Amino acid sequence: MDLLKERIRKQADIINADVLRVDMFLNHQIDVGLLNEIGKEFYSLFKNDGINKILTVEASGIGIACVTAQYFSVPVVFAKKGVNRNVGNEVYTSSVFSFTKSAHSVIGVSKKYLSPEDTVLIIDDFLANGSALEGLMDIVRQANATLAGAGIVIEKAFQGGGARIRASGVRVVSLAIIESMDGGKIVFG
Amino acid sequence: MDLLKERIRKQADIINADVLRVDMFLNHQIDVGLLNEIGKEFYSLFKNDGINKILTVEASGIGIACVTAQYFSVPVVFAKKGVNRNVGNEVYTSSVFSFTKSAHSVIGVSKKYLSPEDTVLIIDDFLANGSALEGLMDIVRQANATLAGAGIVIEKAFQGGGARIRASGVRVVSLAIIESMDGGKIVFG
Repeated sequence: MDLLKERIRKQADIINADVLRVDMFLNHQIDVGLLNEIGKEFYSLFKNDGINKILTVEASGIGIACVTAQYFSVPVVFAKKGVNRNVGNEVYTSSVFSFTKSAHSVIGVSKKYLSPEDTVLIIDDFLANGSALEGLMDIVRQANATLAGAGIVIEKAFQGGGARIRASGVRVVSLAIIESMDGGKIVFG
Repeated sequence: MDLLKERIRKQADIINADVLRVDMFLNHQIDVGLLNEIGKEFYSLFKNDGINKILTVEASGIGIACVTAQYFSVPVVFAKKGVNRNVGNEVYTSSVFSFTKSAHSVIGVSKKYLSPEDTVLIIDDFLANGSALEGLMDIVRQANATLAGAGIVIEKAFQGGGARIRASGVRVVSLAIIESMDGGKIVFG
């Protein structure tokens, strides 16, 4: 998606070899016009997949998921972070490791909001090592729902998560794929 | 807003005299069609106020803010939770007390995304004791931005925050105002 790549090229801050900051249009300040274009693109990619629910994880996935869901006319469910593992029988949980924060956390979705009748599109802002996406996939699996695929805004391909998850047979579509950020220069795939 | 009150009457869970759960359409699963009606309503209420930025706080405010921002054609900025007080000179911070969690936390907004040129509409899902809204107002004040007002989805009037903040001269509009939930019965104002 050229519009998105142009925004990344112009505005993103490369913090170090692994971390890209897009606070100015996606993760702290949100350009809702850009989100609309992103939502339309996800719709054109997944509109024939029978999707009836969009799943994301708080916090920065929520805006993207809500704007995208308008095009599909389906509800959004967002996984909550910092859920207690012993939350009981009412919640699907999965453990996620954040390389940025070097910490494990548990995400959770109430069993009321995912079921075997659901065909799910997972939406997230970033795909790097893949841990967050695998956590969401794990929750879809526990619910016996159907996973249509994942729509990602920015994939850092050099961190390997996308390749591993695609190899497992899941359809992952990323609107901007970054092959490397070496020497402060972003190379798109 | 009758559509919203009807949804609250039909679906909300009254957890106790103080806590109302709207997980099924607003806070965990999100009915994006309903958010659109909410966004239109906020636009009709604040469209002549010169708003150029919408401010909210993660996580459940983000979806409402993004959908609402489409009608205003302005960006969203969301305050981050769990910010370190010693985050440095780059971030406006404010302390917020959650009565639900009985805990203080610090919210923060990067100074890059709020300035004296901004006329801000604050959007949030709930207004109860008013601590979160006062934290966001404090950040708008620190930025020397203009506060146009606050658009709230559900106000629990019996917890007093709305009355106190309106008395200070701020325009607060709530789409559903709950006067009491005594005995498991919701009485709208």
